[in-house]
Amino acid sequence: MEILKVASQSNPNSVAGAIAGALEQEGVVEVHAIGAGAVNQTVKAIAIARRLIERDGAPPIKVIPGFMELDIDGEKKTGIRFIVEK
Amino acid sequence: MEILKVASQSNPNSVAGAIAGALEQEGVVEVHAIGAGAVNQTVKAIAIARRLIERDGAPPIKVIPGFMELDIDGEKKTGIRFIVEK
Repeated sequence: MEILKVASQSNPNSVAGAIAGALEQEGVVEVHAIGAGAVNQTVKAIAIARRLIERDGAPPIKVIPGFMELDIDGEKKTGIRFIVEK
Repeated sequence: MEILKVASQSNPNSVAGAIAGALEQEGVVEVHAIGAGAVNQTVKAIAIARRLIERDGAPPIKVIPGFMELDIDGEKKTGIRFIVEK
C-alpha cells in the first residue's frame, strides 16, 4: 500500500491530488501525520480528494483513522495513521 | 442526527465516549471542528472510539470528512464536518 507522509507545511491541494491518484490506481492509500498541524492538513486533503473522486457520482471515500507509534531519532512519538479507501 | 462540537481543549476520551454512545444508539453521528487543534482532537477521539466500538469484532467505523461554512459572530469560518458511521 502506498504511504503518504503529511507535514503541517504540506499543501492540502497537493496531498489531495496524491490521495486521489493513489485511490484511482490502488483503491486504498495510507496517510501518516504527526502533530495537530499535520493531522489538520491531512483531513483537509481528504476532504478535497473527496471532491475529486466523488465528482462522477462515485460513493464517498471511507477513512479509518488510528494511532501509530513511531521512533524518530530515538524518541517515541504517537502519530495518526489514516487508511483511505475508495 | 446528533451533532457533537469539538474544541481544541476538548478531552479526546470524553469525545470518544460521546461518539461511541451516539453510534450505539443511532449508528451515525456528526462531529464539527474548527481549527487545527479541534480537528486533531476529533481525529484522536475517533481513533479512541474505534477501540471501544470494534472491541467486539465489529467492522471498522467509517469516517467521511468534509468542509462546512459557518457564520460566527458575523465572521465567515470554514470548519470540518465529520460524518462517523458504524
